[in-house]
Amino acid sequence: MFPLTKEQLGRAVAELQIGDITQATIRQICSLSKRLEEMAGEPFVHLEIGNPGLPAIQLGVEAECEALQSGIANKYPDIAGIPQVKDAAARFVKAFIGADLEAQYIYPTVGSMQGFFAVMTALKHRQPGRDTILFLQPGFPATVTQAHIIGLGIEQFDIYQYRGKAMEAKLEEYLSKGNVTAISYSNPNNPAWTNLTDEELEIIGRLATKYDVVVLEDLAYLGMDFRTDFSHPFEAPYVPTVSKYTDNYIMMLSGSKIFSYAGQRIAVVAMSPAVATRQYEGMKQFFGMPRFCDAFVFGVLYALSSGTAHSAQHALAAMMNAAADGKLDFIDISREYGRRASIVKRLLDENGFHIVYAMDGDEPISDGFFFTAGYKDMTSGELQSELMRYGISSISLPTTGSEQDGVRICVSMISDPETFDAFEKRLKAFNHDH
Amino acid sequence: MFPLTKEQLGRAVAELQIGDITQATIRQICSLSKRLEEMAGEPFVHLEIGNPGLPAIQLGVEAECEALQSGIANKYPDIAGIPQVKDAAARFVKAFIGADLEAQYIYPTVGSMQGFFAVMTALKHRQPGRDTILFLQPGFPATVTQAHIIGLGIEQFDIYQYRGKAMEAKLEEYLSKGNVTAISYSNPNNPAWTNLTDEELEIIGRLATKYDVVVLEDLAYLGMDFRTDFSHPFEAPYVPTVSKYTDNYIMMLSGSKIFSYAGQRIAVVAMSPAVATRQYEGMKQFFGMPRFCDAFVFGVLYALSSGTAHSAQHALAAMMNAAADGKLDFIDISREYGRRASIVKRLLDENGFHIVYAMDGDEPISDGFFFTAGYKDMTSGELQSELMRYGISSISLPTTGSEQDGVRICVSMISDPETFDAFEKRLKAFNHDH
Repeated sequence: MFPLTKEQLGRAVAELQIGDITQATIRQICSLSKRLEEMAGEPFVHLEIGNPGLPAIQLGVEAECEALQSGIANKYPDIAGIPQVKDAAARFVKAFIGADLEAQYIYPTVGSMQGFFAVMTALKHRQPGRDTILFLQPGFPATVTQAHIIGLGIEQFDIYQYRGKAMEAKLEEYLSKGNVTAISYSNPNNPAWTNLTDEELEIIGRLATKYDVVVLEDLAYLGMDFRTDFSHPFEAPYVPTVSKYTDNYIMMLSGSKIFSYAGQRIAVVAMSPAVATRQYEGMKQFFGMPRFCDAFVFGVLYALSSGTAHSAQHALAAMMNAAADGKLDFIDISREYGRRASIVKRLLDENGFHIVYAMDGDEPISDGFFFTAGYKDMTSGELQSELMRYGISSISLPTTGSEQDGVRICVSMISDPETFDAFEKRLKAFNHDH
Repeated sequence: MFPLTKEQLGRAVAELQIGDITQATIRQICSLSKRLEEMAGEPFVHLEIGNPGLPAIQLGVEAECEALQSGIANKYPDIAGIPQVKDAAARFVKAFIGADLEAQYIYPTVGSMQGFFAVMTALKHRQPGRDTILFLQPGFPATVTQAHIIGLGIEQFDIYQYRGKAMEAKLEEYLSKGNVTAISYSNPNNPAWTNLTDEELEIIGRLATKYDVVVLEDLAYLGMDFRTDFSHPFEAPYVPTVSKYTDNYIMMLSGSKIFSYAGQRIAVVAMSPAVATRQYEGMKQFFGMPRFCDAFVFGVLYALSSGTAHSAQHALAAMMNAAADGKLDFIDISREYGRRASIVKRLLDENGFHIVYAMDGDEPISDGFFFTAGYKDMTSGELQSELMRYGISSISLPTTGSEQDGVRICVSMISDPETFDAFEKRLKAFNHDH
């Protein structure tokens, strides 16, 4: 029975040795909700997990099985990637982002998680003194953890108060110090589902060129800004990208959400030719290879895992080609997340909640995989804890580098009418009691 | 036409910007042999590449396709591994190594390459001051590169003169300094196909306990010491292992050679319960988790790639279970490498070559995937270069951390009678001319 008492919640938190709930990892929140489900005898409404809530694209599965049956399992994949996935990714980027990339500078990785780890490991040795990543927050906490493990410096700011023109002075404040090697952000944003505007991307691109900084553009949710229809390959409008404004960029394109293919850990790192071919004395000394892309492939990717599973590369190649051919409308499929978000947002709105990161420029944000919600003047910790008592689990904003009060809502796992009903009832009870 | 002239070889080396051939990577040697093949108009005998030369175990392929078709591709795999592969690996270890491990402390990784990278990344933060890996050489060069990238110190010695009892004083010399956190070796050894004797394993184990050092035991070629028949599951004799002599060990078991499954990048890291459960203040501070296994899984494996491709875990589980059930005699299948090695060794012997690392204690080494060969008093560089002129490519011993003169011979890609004939003709010509 929900709500659980504060004592019950406190007991479960103590049992799991969670110190500060606002700093708990997603894994810890999952364990906590599981424990609380046992106490309540009722399932939670899970809004914390970012698992794809749609089935994997079947033609990826078919391509993968076909490749396996053809006898690839005994052969080390080329560390730089099989030609099929490199070519397909170049076509896919051209079709939906409109950028001209060269297949040779696109590399498959074990998810964008490995992509980021590898890119940041390479960037660490680009230039002496440039040892810091600037994170535009809020963001995916794991990327910051990766920088910590690699031994990079970490700078970050919450973009909440620095949207639009205000972003320029704030970026200059960090970049002018000269120690930043890269700027990292995701677009659409995890957790806030904001999308940087063209004005903002222009500022970031121009300053990246000015200060010789590489932009790491995470496009994990490519095309899922449903306010604009990006679903027609090789036709405008294209997905907005910093690559229009600078040559200093590396894009990360993961199959996990775009094709609901998270289980097979497959993504690509797509470098601009300018980034890929530049030579550095620091890389020559550390990796024995001066060119960025050589150090990345034969220095870093080789050392991390000797490449990416052969069959998953075939799957991604098939899905990207089908999308570029107009035979697989992955954006339309992912509209389901927008539908779910619109319902969840309405229910929250009817029960006293508000969207925290609400606008991109003059426009309300898109509906999609994630968004952020606050309740009256509750702090992040209060809101997350109280929602847990009512059988609703979420991630608190401080874990994402945000300075705002609120929680991250992920709609991927809420789909059936019964769960929406349970969610509405619990929200009403919550709103009534607070 | 072979032999190529010294001028032709010199030109190809210069074109590929290879400075010192004895320090060239495998990749560079592959490129060089490709270029020389074009010059000669004849294919090389490739003894440099360590690709499996046998087809992948088909029941792994079937299990993987079945798992994919069942709908796992959209689900993030548990970072600690799916229960099936953890359980299967524990059974497999018990069946062929005779060690009692707990499934919960066995973790799938993206090949043993990721396994080593992850383990060494975790070890770096185990104890302040313990920041160095001791490599028993010769060995797989990439592991040393990994330590370099992670920022660990590197110590190493060539075991050639320190076999048997002599190993004890040599190990003490390094371990007594107190800065070594782990000892790394492979058994059977890449490149020398030596196997540490029980006497040597006892010394290593005892000193690992005495000096609180973790032993990293790479069992990539498990059971392929064909002098003893290790092919009967759950029956002695078991594969020799340091785990008989210390609790401070982590085993690496890769599917790449054992099941010819290199393309799918799948292995397991199997920790002793003592290593897994020990708590460290340094790990608590760096990863926020004091237990070694927690820091390893949720700190390191999560950050490296968020786990390992779902389907490959099912493949490895199926193959390990079939082997433990006695339904898949992977050791008998790999005897083919022993057969090839015996022919290659005979041809070398008939043409003036000798085995460099020739003995384990009183016994000649086993025939298997690799071995080392020298010719008269030629240095490594001379021998490798001259063999290249005669259309035979190999890896020089200095790249493997060896101080001996010679080359590494890998027999995985030499199988058909025509190639053996070409090999013999070229050896005769080489021996005649030198």
